[in-house]
Amino acid sequence: MLENIDGYVIDLDGTVYKGQQAIEGVMDSIAYVKSIGKRVVFLSNRGNISRHMCHDKLIGMGIDVQEEEILLTSTVTATYLRNHDEGAQVWVLGEQGLRDELVLAGLTLAEKPEEADWLVITLHETLTYKELNEAFRAVRHGARMIATNADKTFPGDEGDSIDVAGMIGALESTTDQKVEVVIGKPSILMAEAALEVMGLPAERCMIIGDSLVSDIGLGKNAGMRTTLVLTGSVSREEAEASDVQPDYIWNSLSDLKDILQSEASPK
Amino acid sequence: MLENIDGYVIDLDGTVYKGQQAIEGVMDSIAYVKSIGKRVVFLSNRGNISRHMCHDKLIGMGIDVQEEEILLTSTVTATYLRNHDEGAQVWVLGEQGLRDELVLAGLTLAEKPEEADWLVITLHETLTYKELNEAFRAVRHGARMIATNADKTFPGDEGDSIDVAGMIGALESTTDQKVEVVIGKPSILMAEAALEVMGLPAERCMIIGDSLVSDIGLGKNAGMRTTLVLTGSVSREEAEASDVQPDYIWNSLSDLKDILQSEASPK
Repeated sequence: MLENIDGYVIDLDGTVYKGQQAIEGVMDSIAYVKSIGKRVVFLSNRGNISRHMCHDKLIGMGIDVQEEEILLTSTVTATYLRNHDEGAQVWVLGEQGLRDELVLAGLTLAEKPEEADWLVITLHETLTYKELNEAFRAVRHGARMIATNADKTFPGDEGDSIDVAGMIGALESTTDQKVEVVIGKPSILMAEAALEVMGLPAERCMIIGDSLVSDIGLGKNAGMRTTLVLTGSVSREEAEASDVQPDYIWNSLSDLKDILQSEASPK
Repeated sequence: MLENIDGYVIDLDGTVYKGQQAIEGVMDSIAYVKSIGKRVVFLSNRGNISRHMCHDKLIGMGIDVQEEEILLTSTVTATYLRNHDEGAQVWVLGEQGLRDELVLAGLTLAEKPEEADWLVITLHETLTYKELNEAFRAVRHGARMIATNADKTFPGDEGDSIDVAGMIGALESTTDQKVEVVIGKPSILMAEAALEVMGLPAERCMIIGDSLVSDIGLGKNAGMRTTLVLTGSVSREEAEASDVQPDYIWNSLSDLKDILQSEASPK
């Protein structure tokens, strides 16, 4: 089942951790898969934190990971803008982590919303009306819109919570402008970034995640093998009833170690 | 020009005041029109304050007004819900002023978003992510949506600012549900409420406001005479280029006194 797979693209939220808590057993599976020489990339639609902040979080959970093995939409968005409009002034509807990634990529942060060429939209749970209105003013004065992702919901502490699609809806419905680029999964931009880090073709990679739309959708768009885990937003019943069918369904990413060991042992 | 007009429906924001400041001369015009026995109703799409709070604000500006002469979407929304779903539990995306109006109308405020039958959407400039997410949770658990108004922008201290349409866009695009009722101008619900207060038929009334869509649109929907004033969001050039044509364009509501006096004086 996994013998041709040399690279694992692993979602974070709902797959490796929930909130501040690592999911039981995932630390062992990740350590094992790396110990047998497989490549790993962690791929998340999170746009409000920097790669550095995410690395700290994973290390704090006891997960063995290099900063280069983490790809967030904040990083990929910054790279995209640098490659497509290097001199652009950028306004951020988001947090410091996203600003850090943009500056690290060599972009300039606009001093006022009215001066921005691009508005980068992501979500943060400390969003205020003032910030939303600054983003609105940027677009009214000509800024083009790019979003780190377009998820409708994410699993929050009090259940499903409103995600970036809400901010996009607020701005599109009041400015009569459309978001031009969405970076996050299932966009092929995220798959290309992951394959580039691993240096592997898609057919030798498997994506493991908890979202049918984002993770399994991305795997299918890119030609990777796909595994849905049930530790996040989707139940087995929902998965079986869906139009999008993953190649495999596991209870948890923690199953990966057992599956690899049983395949490796003599029949 | 005004000889058959016995009732004036007057917009507030951009017509009577801007921010915390009364527009010059409007106090005199309002006092004069009442002194010659005409009826007046102030009609605003504001949904986040109570009629009582608005009355205090106008009195503080020196404007002679009774509480009964003020119709806000907070009041009209509360009356609508009471008449259509009296036992409903209501969750508010808004401020205390709207909650006051709902309780005054005899409605019950839900204790948790998940328990609400209706979500009432309005705008307030202290909106936080937490409040937006509570509204989202109400809808995800079955609450139907009603909005005090659906304006895209309002004239704020730093120029045009994002209005209720933004909140509607955020919730509709993430819940796949639609707002069922919009109370505010140009909805006929606001016109009917104004005509009821004045006890006059539409053809004996004139609406005076600064918005082509909300004010002039409402007047045309209801069969009232229409006057656009240029103290708010629209310039004379924009007005003349518009599909919606008011019967009259005045520089300001303060012109009303002069026009009435010149019509009353012997030819």
